[in-house]
Amino acid sequence: MTAIPRIPEKEVIMRRIDAEDIEAIALGASVYGTGGGGDPYIGKLIAMNMMRRHGPVRMIDVASLGDDDLVVPVALVGAPTVAIEKFPSTNQFIGALTAIEKYLGKKVSAVMCAEAGGLNSTIPFAVASQVGLPLLDGDLMGRAFPEIQMTLATLHGIKATPMALCDDKGNSVVMDTVTNQYTERFVRSLASDMGGSACTVLYPMTGAQARLTTIPGSLTMLRKAGDVLIAARRDKRDPVAALVGLLGARRLFEGKVTDVQRATAGGWNRGTATLAGFQGESRRRCQVRFQNEFLMAEVDGKPVATTPDLIAILDAETGEPVTAELLRYGLRVTVVGFACHPQWRSPGGLALAGPRYFGYDVDYAPIDAIPAEV
Amino acid sequence: MTAIPRIPEKEVIMRRIDAEDIEAIALGASVYGTGGGGDPYIGKLIAMNMMRRHGPVRMIDVASLGDDDLVVPVALVGAPTVAIEKFPSTNQFIGALTAIEKYLGKKVSAVMCAEAGGLNSTIPFAVASQVGLPLLDGDLMGRAFPEIQMTLATLHGIKATPMALCDDKGNSVVMDTVTNQYTERFVRSLASDMGGSACTVLYPMTGAQARLTTIPGSLTMLRKAGDVLIAARRDKRDPVAALVGLLGARRLFEGKVTDVQRATAGGWNRGTATLAGFQGESRRRCQVRFQNEFLMAEVDGKPVATTPDLIAILDAETGEPVTAELLRYGLRVTVVGFACHPQWRSPGGLALAGPRYFGYDVDYAPIDAIPAEV
Repeated sequence: MTAIPRIPEKEVIMRRIDAEDIEAIALGASVYGTGGGGDPYIGKLIAMNMMRRHGPVRMIDVASLGDDDLVVPVALVGAPTVAIEKFPSTNQFIGALTAIEKYLGKKVSAVMCAEAGGLNSTIPFAVASQVGLPLLDGDLMGRAFPEIQMTLATLHGIKATPMALCDDKGNSVVMDTVTNQYTERFVRSLASDMGGSACTVLYPMTGAQARLTTIPGSLTMLRKAGDVLIAARRDKRDPVAALVGLLGARRLFEGKVTDVQRATAGGWNRGTATLAGFQGESRRRCQVRFQNEFLMAEVDGKPVATTPDLIAILDAETGEPVTAELLRYGLRVTVVGFACHPQWRSPGGLALAGPRYFGYDVDYAPIDAIPAEV
Repeated sequence: MTAIPRIPEKEVIMRRIDAEDIEAIALGASVYGTGGGGDPYIGKLIAMNMMRRHGPVRMIDVASLGDDDLVVPVALVGAPTVAIEKFPSTNQFIGALTAIEKYLGKKVSAVMCAEAGGLNSTIPFAVASQVGLPLLDGDLMGRAFPEIQMTLATLHGIKATPMALCDDKGNSVVMDTVTNQYTERFVRSLASDMGGSACTVLYPMTGAQARLTTIPGSLTMLRKAGDVLIAARRDKRDPVAALVGLLGARRLFEGKVTDVQRATAGGWNRGTATLAGFQGESRRRCQVRFQNEFLMAEVDGKPVATTPDLIAILDAETGEPVTAELLRYGLRVTVVGFACHPQWRSPGGLALAGPRYFGYDVDYAPIDAIPAEV
């Protein structure tokens, strides 16, 4: 792998990201992770550890990429619950990067995040630091989603393959599929066979393609969300209010977790969390359904937010986002919802990641159009 | 792909196999297929059709390969039941061969059979004819087995990967695994995701490796078995007796099929066939257990033959072998057993494919050591 991007230095807008900056990025990643994408604490530890060992990461804008430069998202796939026990090693990404470079006969110029949210927004910092490649400030979703084909790249006809998949035992797979739905199907089986999760390099793109299909500035957006939470806590202001202000989010429900139904199956963490309102409104109930990510929130049986809009569950005191696998009885939380990237609201976007795709029998209504109740 | 093997012509022992020769080879393949490996009728049609279109096949001995020549088995993987409905196309093998050549950076000099038995002993004729490569007279098992790691190549430390897997939609996967057991695990999932079966190129070997790990003359052996059955039928002699004589086989049971329990699951065709003795011995019962292939025969609850020895079920009248998926109530059959290749009887061979591997709680006893009863 080349450590130097083939981009004329003068055109490159590059920001240096140090290990200490990961704190805010990881926190923001857990907001945008909408409950999925794994324990952000693990991602933070991995990224900080690698950056202290291998140095800071050069973060570049998509505009800095040459038209023919090869940029590849690096991502962990599988059930986030597994990552808690099976700590991912970034070494596996080196095998996957090498496999893709060999397959395409071309060196990788930069790595990027497949999604803005969860482990997949912090692990790429570890990879970029380790292999000495710049990291693109952008992603393919503007949020996190549980299936591989759920990207704006799919919407623009970009293939998820050739894709490389490596596990901790040394197994590697390279696939080339006719649709991104097949990629998802094959990867889901293989991730399960590989022990529940695997390291991947996918959606290889030219710089020109990346300019069309990535959401620019995603990582900066995550950092801002993290910074706002950290600043509010430091200044003894309400962190939830600060975050809601930044995101233009809605407060959907406040209450405590009374039940969590959860199963790690088919390479996913699926389930439903039930919340009861606090004293004043103790008869109200909220249900949040998830498949890795929170996908639909209902209050008293009525949807108040659905995918592709974003739903986050925040600790009512600290504003700390709670992931689906860490939800537990008694937790006092605020459920918030905020708008997805406008492209997700197109018919194609809703076909890919709307509520009906996930089997919920409701039409998508933009969160800003649903009457506010809290 | 090169159409001309890089073998000095003078050293090559080559036999020309015409479409008409496939009749006997396919018949022999269904004897050695021991109930698995798919409907031989389909394999025969495919091979004959391709050879009539693309010409005869040059069959070479393993001694004819140069030490560095690349020889690759081509095989269909998945549940043989599926092949009845989802007719395999040899075009998919071209994609798999190209993928392996690209991965290894080396042209394939010859193709071969992974197993001696079933579709995987006739389909390679179709592939060899279509791509114009010679076909090796040999295989990796000397019989058919249901799992990818069950080869003498595994016993000799040869890897099943890099392996390429292609389906009828145009999806392709190349994998490199740390053990052949992982190859099996990944392929089984992928074959299922690909619709139940897939075309593969696996166990790429040098000529030097092939000389160590292949069973030479397998295809000639299949042809002899087929020829004996055809000749006996033509001459109005007992085909079963003729075949038993050629193979040094034992008659294990004669009777009719009274029940077949069968499930196509996990990419396999698994089950148990129950047979009742003919009038004179109507109280005796025989059970034949299978996972694609017949793996254990019991008479009145006592094992009379177990894997890795071979078990075939022959039509009592015609000597025609019956595959596990075509077994049906009322069929009058003779169950015969015969010895496997001696290497399978080693501790390593039995660990790979002995009865305990398949979950049968019996020790392997060579068929020639079990007291005869029929």
